[in-house]
Order: sequence, then C-alpha cells, then structure tokens
Amino acid sequence: MISCEIVSVGTELLLGDIVDTNAPYLSRELAAMGIAVLHRSTVGDNAGRLRDAVELALSRSDIVLLTGGLGPTADDITKEVCAQVMGFELVRDEESENAMRAFFKTRGRPMPESNLKQADVPLGGIVFRNDHGTAPGAAMERDGKCVILLPGPPNEMRAMFTDKVKPYLAAKTTGVIVSHTVRTMGIGESDMAERVAPLLEGSNPTVAPYAKQGEALLRVTAHADTAAQAEAIIAPALDEIRSILGGYIYGIDVADIQHAVVQGLLEKKLHVATAESCTAGYISKRITEVAGASDVFACGLVTYSNDMKEKLLGVRHETLAAHGAVSAETAAEMAAGVKRVSGAEIAVAVTGVAGPGCSENKPVGLVYIGIADRDGVRTVRFETGRKDREFNRYVTASRALHLVWQSIQNY
Amino acid sequence: MISCEIVSVGTELLLGDIVDTNAPYLSRELAAMGIAVLHRSTVGDNAGRLRDAVELALSRSDIVLLTGGLGPTADDITKEVCAQVMGFELVRDEESENAMRAFFKTRGRPMPESNLKQADVPLGGIVFRNDHGTAPGAAMERDGKCVILLPGPPNEMRAMFTDKVKPYLAAKTTGVIVSHTVRTMGIGESDMAERVAPLLEGSNPTVAPYAKQGEALLRVTAHADTAAQAEAIIAPALDEIRSILGGYIYGIDVADIQHAVVQGLLEKKLHVATAESCTAGYISKRITEVAGASDVFACGLVTYSNDMKEKLLGVRHETLAAHGAVSAETAAEMAAGVKRVSGAEIAVAVTGVAGPGCSENKPVGLVYIGIADRDGVRTVRFETGRKDREFNRYVTASRALHLVWQSIQNY
Repeated sequence: MISCEIVSVGTELLLGDIVDTNAPYLSRELAAMGIAVLHRSTVGDNAGRLRDAVELALSRSDIVLLTGGLGPTADDITKEVCAQVMGFELVRDEESENAMRAFFKTRGRPMPESNLKQADVPLGGIVFRNDHGTAPGAAMERDGKCVILLPGPPNEMRAMFTDKVKPYLAAKTTGVIVSHTVRTMGIGESDMAERVAPLLEGSNPTVAPYAKQGEALLRVTAHADTAAQAEAIIAPALDEIRSILGGYIYGIDVADIQHAVVQGLLEKKLHVATAESCTAGYISKRITEVAGASDVFACGLVTYSNDMKEKLLGVRHETLAAHGAVSAETAAEMAAGVKRVSGAEIAVAVTGVAGPGCSENKPVGLVYIGIADRDGVRTVRFETGRKDREFNRYVTASRALHLVWQSIQNY
Repeated sequence: MISCEIVSVGTELLLGDIVDTNAPYLSRELAAMGIAVLHRSTVGDNAGRLRDAVELALSRSDIVLLTGGLGPTADDITKEVCAQVMGFELVRDEESENAMRAFFKTRGRPMPESNLKQADVPLGGIVFRNDHGTAPGAAMERDGKCVILLPGPPNEMRAMFTDKVKPYLAAKTTGVIVSHTVRTMGIGESDMAERVAPLLEGSNPTVAPYAKQGEALLRVTAHADTAAQAEAIIAPALDEIRSILGGYIYGIDVADIQHAVVQGLLEKKLHVATAESCTAGYISKRITEVAGASDVFACGLVTYSNDMKEKLLGVRHETLAAHGAVSAETAAEMAAGVKRVSGAEIAVAVTGVAGPGCSENKPVGLVYIGIADRDGVRTVRFETGRKDREFNRYVTASRALHLVWQSIQNY
C-alpha cells in the first residue's frame, strides 16, 4: 500500500487563525483511493522548518502532499523549498504567466510583477493548472518518491485535487476503491448505526456511519481489481441498507439535500418558492447553489419583521397578534402567501428562534415550517435542541428542504 | 520564548472522519500566552509512530502538548507511550477511580472494569482532574522538558486547558503576544503586500499579509512583557497601514464584512433591504448571520426570473427587454424597487452570471450591483474573473456588502 504524508504550510494555521479543513479533506480522498495517510504535520512559513518537515516526510512516506504557501508574497516559500529538497530547478512557465496576466486584465487591475513568481514551475516536473486561481500546483518525482504541491485556498485545492492530482495518483495505485454514500435525514447517527450494526463488522465492503451537520450518513466502500467487481461487492450491502433505513434515505451519492430537491423538481417539472424568517435567505441560497436551479426556483421572500410578513406575504395582522411570528399559524400563512405570490406548485416557509436570545418568550431552537402544495397547507414544529445560531439556521434550512423533497415525491 | 508542539492523536483524524479543532484552539491560546507553536503533527493510534512523534517533538520544543488517546479502549495509548518516553511509572489514582465509579453510578450504568485504566496516572507527575468526563489529564517534567496530556473531546479538553493547564503554563512563561487583523476589500493580496512592503521586514511587530475568500488581510503581531507594551509596539505600524491602505480598510479586528455592515447600521440607526438575483439569498443570509441583525434588516427579495423582477420589484418590462436582466439598468431598478417596497434607507440589488453557463450571451462572472440610498441610485459593474459558481456568488455578495458599508459611511 502506498503511503502519503500531508504537510499543511502556513503561520496562520500555527497561530490558530484558521482551521485546517484541507488536511481532513485530503485524508478522506486518499483513504478512498487506498492510499495510507500515517502522518500529518503543520509548519509555518519558515524555510528551515519547512525543509526539515519535507525531508522527514520523505524519509517515511512515498508521497508528500503539501498545501499552502504557493502565493505571490515573500512568505510563500513552499515551492522554492521543495524544489531545493528534490533537486529541481524553477523556471518561468509561459502558459501560467499568460493566464495570470489575463486574469488581472479581466479584473481591470494592474498586476504587480512580484505576482509572477507564482508562474515559476519545476523544470522536469508536472504542472497542475489552477482553474480557480492564479497559483499552479506541481509534482516532482525522484527515486520513487514524489512531492505534490497544492494551493492553500480550499476551493482551489479541492478542484485541483479532483481534476488533476487524483488521476495522476490513480496511475500509481493498483486496484480500485469504490465508495457510495447513503444520505439520510430524520434519524440520529447512533440510532442509524445500531439498526445497521451487523453491516458495520464487514471488511469488504466496509460500512461506516458518520454524522455531518445534523445529518447521518453511511459510507459503503469496497476494493477490488475492477470497478465492476467492487460494485458487485457493494450491491448486496446497499440493498440491505435500503430495506432497513428506507424512508430516512433521501439519496445515494447525491451531494446534499438541495441537489436532491433541484433534481426532483427538474424531473417532475415543478417549481418551488420560499418565505424565510429566521433562516433569512439560507434556503434560497442553498437551492440556488445547484446549477440549473433557475428553471425550478420561482422566488424567495425574506421577511424578518411582522410588517413585511403582512405586506409581502399577506399574513393576517390578527394571526401575528394572537399567535406571534413564531407559530404554526404564521408559518402556514407565510407558505400559502408565497405560493400565491409566486405561482409555484410547492412553497415552503420558515419561522423560528435562531438565537442567541429567545424572542416572544419562545425558546432558542424552536422552529415552525409550513409547506403548501397541491394537498393544501401543513406545518411541522421542531426544536433543534441547541443555542448555536449558525447550526440552528443550517439545520432548519435542511429540514425545510427535506419537507420540499418529500412533497416532490407525492407528485 | 518558550516553544510548544501540539501532537493530535487519533486514527479518525488521519482518516479525515473528524476535523481537528483542538489544535487551532490550543494554538490561539498558547500564542496569546506568549508561547510559540512552531510545529503541529497528527498521528494515529499506533505506539511506534506515536513514540517517534513524541521523541521528535521533545527534541525541538520545550513543551509537548498531546490531545486524544486517553480513553478506556485498547487503542487509547497516549498516556502509556508518553510515560515510557519520559521514564514515568503509571499508578492507579484513587481519587480518579472514585470519581469514575461515582460518574457511572449517577448515570445508572455499570462500569466496565477496563474503564479503570483511565485512572492510572504518572507517579511524580501532575494530575489534571477532568470535570467534564472520566479521563484525567497529566503533565510530566524531565530535564527542562514537559509533556502534557489532554483528553480528545473538545469540551473536556477546553475546560481542562482553561481551568488547569493554563495556570500551570502561566507559571513557566514571561510576556504576552498581541495580534490585530486589518481587513480590506477591493485590493489584491500581492498589491497590498507591495504597498506595505517595508513593514513586512520587521520582527516586532511582524506584519503578515494573507488572502481569504477574495479579501486581503494584514495581521500585525507584537510580543512584549505586558499587553499594554505590546499595543504600544503595534500602534505605529497600524497607523502607517491606515495611512497607506486608507480607503481599502473596512475594519480592524472585525469578524467579516457582514459584521462591519450590521455594526454600522446599528450605530447609525439605519436599515438595509436586498434584492438578489444570482446570489439568491446569500447577501441576506450573511447579514442575518450577525446576531442583532433583526433590528437593521428590513427585507430581502430573491427574484431569479424576469417575471418576479417585474412583479415584486417593479422593474419595467421595457428595461428587461432592452438591456436584459444582467444589466446596469436592471440592477438600478431592482435597488430602487426594493427600497420602495421595504422603506429601508439603503437598498442593494445584485444581478449577474454566476455560472457555470453564460446567459444572455454575457460572460460568467459578470455582475451588476445597484445601490439606492439618500444620494439616489448608482450601479457598479465588475467581473469576478472566474467560472466557479460558489466563489462568484460569495465574492459578489461580499462586494455588495462592501458597497452597503461604503453607503453607511456617508450617513
């Protein structure tokens, strides 16, 4: 089994200013490819310590994967240090230089000449173009060892890893690893794990439960010589999971609930509209993360105040006075209101207390969701059980999206 | 200056199943105490590799701080390995044993005898009681070096660090580190770095540029005997940065642009309303991330389709027909429309092409932002220069928030 060590570079990491999400992402991706990650380390923007870290990593791992320190400033030294350690010369790459000049030109800003150091690449190495930023990545091979450089910004790093580095590494590994992720909503991780307990004992496929932002997931992974063989190993486990978890599953290998919703709306040629109070645009923002959402998203109204709930959504003054903004009655009228305004087949409305403070003497985490579709209007009450504003808003948006998904299944 | 190395222990970290938030937390806390963290590493539950990691850390740092691997199961080996490396004998600690038995009794659960291994502590070492769980922490000193063991669960770790380890470490250190972060918008990282280049050479204070999601930041850090002395060292550098970067700075030590916006609106008792097309709720979602936003956020209208732009915002049919939805004219009418509907003093509207595909034959990344305030309506055109939908939406929302921030400054 090939081994890989991840080295995260950046003084801002060592100061704790940012949390390193790149290393866990790469750990997961490499594990799924059958590459063992036995060490991870973090060093600051210091040439001596970085050199030591790279040399140590090379002494015990086949592949050393570094993130960060490829930028234009003087403290970006990852490429220079690694080239020196691996004995590669850095040369100006014309294609990268041109791309960089074009990038600045589009933005109508002058390009500082210092920026060009990003266009230096290791002579005789492999260059990974950066489709989402200016600094290219690279790979340098020597004596059966390999050093790979990736940019630090997560969006650039992930895209480059997926599109360029993964295929490059795949050629170095034997056999394939295939993985499917079952996504559920409405069931806790430990409850789910107990129900599928016998499956968790297996070694090929492995079935691993995990929790992510209020959702419980199961990852089913098999290794085999070919993808078809791996799929054949996985199929019976997936069937069993489907029969055990049935109604809780909203998708397999779907990115998230908003992708499941947009896909469902597109398939059935339906439209959705949103009326949001405590989530205040989070639901519409998530729906429209999905490319193609413009064909299914009618409109969204963010009505924080009672005044706007009356004016834009037609919620009755008496309803707000009698039951308050955070109530089933208000959620129902908000949903009916935005359905009427938009003409969408399905409308969802949310009102609740995101925190940190309570409002209307109602507890933090209390939420009412209204759904209006061809079966009429219904509401769901739930409590997130937490005081964390961001968590409460995210989970509320997820729950609302899940109710839209369930409504779609009835069309 | 005392140096400390953080070693995070756990195979689940190396697999990427969980993100390590302990290490950044400890990094921040240690930096604030004036303790330099120059290395961080992560190892799995493997005795040989853990021993190597601890020995390496001891060879280059004064203090080695480990988190995780203190639990009751067979793969929890941190204490055993560290005691061996430091030459300490482990003995059963009666107080910990009694606390453990009491803990299980309260919960009405039988205690597995294997659990008692958590009550073993290094003879001659320092024991840190765990007020939030069963595994105690410990410190072992030898030859001027020190190994500190902390539990892995973040709530247990943070409480033990704050209440027990911090006072223990404070006795070993002199001086403090103070850091301020200058946040800018509208200037690139390399451009900013060039303008403040002479400041980047200093060692106390240090000035370090970095980029984060389309923004350029500068961190100014000083160490001194007292916080007041550190502030006095920082002040002239901050003054110089202010005079060089002036208009680009939207805040110092403010969390992000949405916090700056909400703070500004609260101070001047103003309200904002949003009309969003391509960002589709991202702006309102970000404004309302800030607790207290309900006092300043009037309403938000997400109008993806031309139809909804006409119906909800009063954009004229002729405007859309003549210039298209992605145009300065439409952005201006959207802003004016939502200002009228909401009654807010400041209104911002966004229309653009988020990608991946182009629309109306306009390029991906092209955005028009309209601002309506007491000075009338004006528009800004810009191109993000990228094809990444999520990036384009985030940066567009940031730019729109920055325009709102600039408008607030004129009140």
